[in-house]
Amino acid sequence: MITLLTDFGNDACVGIMKGVIFGLHPKAQIVDLAHHIAPQSVEEAAFILKSAYPYFPEGTVHCAVVDPGVGSDRSILIVRTKTAIFLAPDNGLLSVVLEDEKEVCLYKVTNTSLFLKTVSHTFHGRDIFAPVAAHLDQGMSPEKIGESVDDYNKLNLPKAVITENLIRGEILFFDHFGNAITNIPESELDTKSSYKITAGKIRLKTINKTYSDVNDLTPIAIFGSHNHLEIAVRNGNAREQLSLQKGQIIEIDISKG
Amino acid sequence: MITLLTDFGNDACVGIMKGVIFGLHPKAQIVDLAHHIAPQSVEEAAFILKSAYPYFPEGTVHCAVVDPGVGSDRSILIVRTKTAIFLAPDNGLLSVVLEDEKEVCLYKVTNTSLFLKTVSHTFHGRDIFAPVAAHLDQGMSPEKIGESVDDYNKLNLPKAVITENLIRGEILFFDHFGNAITNIPESELDTKSSYKITAGKIRLKTINKTYSDVNDLTPIAIFGSHNHLEIAVRNGNAREQLSLQKGQIIEIDISKG
Amino acid sequence: MITLLTDFGNDACVGIMKGVIFGLHPKAQIVDLAHHIAPQSVEEAAFILKSAYPYFPEGTVHCAVVDPGVGSDRSILIVRTKTAIFLAPDNGLLSVVLEDEKEVCLYKVTNTSLFLKTVSHTFHGRDIFAPVAAHLDQGMSPEKIGESVDDYNKLNLPKAVITENLIRGEILFFDHFGNAITNIPESELDTKSSYKITAGKIRLKTINKTYSDVNDLTPIAIFGSHNHLEIAVRNGNAREQLSLQKGQIIEIDISKG
Repeated sequence: MITLLTDFGNDACVGIMKGVIFGLHPKAQIVDLAHHIAPQSVEEAAFILKSAYPYFPEGTVHCAVVDPGVGSDRSILIVRTKTAIFLAPDNGLLSVVLEDEKEVCLYKVTNTSLFLKTVSHTFHGRDIFAPVAAHLDQGMSPEKIGESVDDYNKLNLPKAVITENLIRGEILFFDHFGNAITNIPESELDTKSSYKITAGKIRLKTINKTYSDVNDLTPIAIFGSHNHLEIAVRNGNAREQLSLQKGQIIEIDISKG
Repeated sequence: MITLLTDFGNDACVGIMKGVIFGLHPKAQIVDLAHHIAPQSVEEAAFILKSAYPYFPEGTVHCAVVDPGVGSDRSILIVRTKTAIFLAPDNGLLSVVLEDEKEVCLYKVTNTSLFLKTVSHTFHGRDIFAPVAAHLDQGMSPEKIGESVDDYNKLNLPKAVITENLIRGEILFFDHFGNAITNIPESELDTKSSYKITAGKIRLKTINKTYSDVNDLTPIAIFGSHNHLEIAVRNGNAREQLSLQKGQIIEIDISKG
Repeated sequence: MITLLTDFGNDACVGIMKGVIFGLHPKAQIVDLAHHIAPQSVEEAAFILKSAYPYFPEGTVHCAVVDPGVGSDRSILIVRTKTAIFLAPDNGLLSVVLEDEKEVCLYKVTNTSLFLKTVSHTFHGRDIFAPVAAHLDQGMSPEKIGESVDDYNKLNLPKAVITENLIRGEILFFDHFGNAITNIPESELDTKSSYKITAGKIRLKTINKTYSDVNDLTPIAIFGSHNHLEIAVRNGNAREQLSLQKGQIIEIDISKG
């Protein structure tokens, strides 16, 4: 199975990549992970990929093309873990996955004989990523596609700062419902405790377990399916109704007194 | 075959549901029915599902997740008809299908051993609906998934009011082209007859058979593929150009004199 | 394999077409090419199809439904080339493919026994195109579906005008990133030469090879993956940042002196 994660939106680019894959690998199973990553947002793609890949079958090839450096001399990375294979530009996209995974092998794609005959300067998704993903999914060993490397580019995803009395994080992005997904991981906090949460003009006193703990159109702090704190509005749109923005600071007073 | 109908939009949620399904059911055939249902609009999902399911092969499992009550104690319903199986929250989504179908069996999902090991409070599409749909499509009997029930929640879709001289309906939603789909069913009216139709500031004198009966950018009343009256603008956008709104009243004078 | 290219956007129409196809052809492989063609824009669909179809396996059936004349007496065309089959309304959509292909056979769809039992006046994608595509992909000969024709409707795609000192083209459409795709083909120009390019208020002095030749948020002229000149902004949005519009004139001074 191959998953595709891109910022290509509704253009025909994704369909064309599938055409290339099926041409080489007629029995491929392809799943669209997401194609509306904010243009060139390696950070959002990395976060989404990390949330999604554990739910796919063992052996899945995850091909992620959010690639502001297309046409430059940036490398393309293959990461093999015990359960999956990842293919992406070496621009930090895979560094969030690599934080979580222990036994990994890294390769830089070098075998240009696998690429389409003509490689454009603007659409490596079609000319390089699609054929390489097809070969990986058919079982070609990464050793035949690239050379082993030790290092890779890391992403500077802003991390929540945790002190004795305060957790200070920020909004990373918004989902389709307008929920604000923050960089404050669930592991740092308990639900149902009493806190003072500040998000812009909004003050909240607790982290709830489920949207239905509050009334319709009421703001709520909750741990969402990404296992991070989210600021939402029940059956509403937090982004619009609370005027929240990407990068906005979220503070949680965790002092006992 | 499994169809998916959600309000998840362009997020990775749909891709993640597919990952879960393929993990349990590697040979699944999955078709996206629609994922841009207006957020939490059970009404729109119900209407779309009713228009769509008759066109799918016998035995298809239709999995619909528009679920404003996710995380509450709302039930999840399985409906088995003679030709298909439906899986959705018990929030009225399936009541429009149930109006049309005679011989049906209803079940409430209770077999938690089929769910993912950890069930979140915010994403039952991934944790409950996807694995249950996978098991249904592999032929597991609904009796092994839930317990038989007689009752279910009905939806209050506004119905057109028909009197001797007047049909009074309203706009339910707009399609991608900006056509206004109303709750006035084709069965109540003939095409090509003479009527007085009022939709906001627009007056129309007939119901046409095809868009090409009128000139470009001209308003037209027509029975669309949902078998309901639609107000459209030929090769234009009725929503924008006629300033129509959801819930807006449509009146048809059917008096003879 | 069947590809689908439509202007149906996010509605359920595409899913319903797939339901019809799988009902007739359970083993079909279907790829979404694009469904957000601008409403009724036969020109954009024709251009996208031309860029995409060479990347699909031999024998692919390309089904394109951008159909402002649905319900009128316009014909439906089948085009068989040496490597692929095309199915679309006879409204010019296939004329751009036909410009490039030499040995072709043309047919007008006439065998109504292949259509759904009830054919609507508004959704031939479901009632005619889907079942015909299913039969074509299963190997039914076009001779059994229609009758041979010689003529077809041509599209008036505006062509770039090339004189001794000047190339004068225009913007055809914008892609998801806001890049302006023009009707100036790569074959008419060299990269890295010195030119005077005028696009609205923008002046550029060269055509670059890759986005990374310029700094972030800098305008650039480049040959994109459609093999046509594009005006872009590196990691930005040319449509918004340069206030470009569809149909806007692009001039290139190619005089030597």
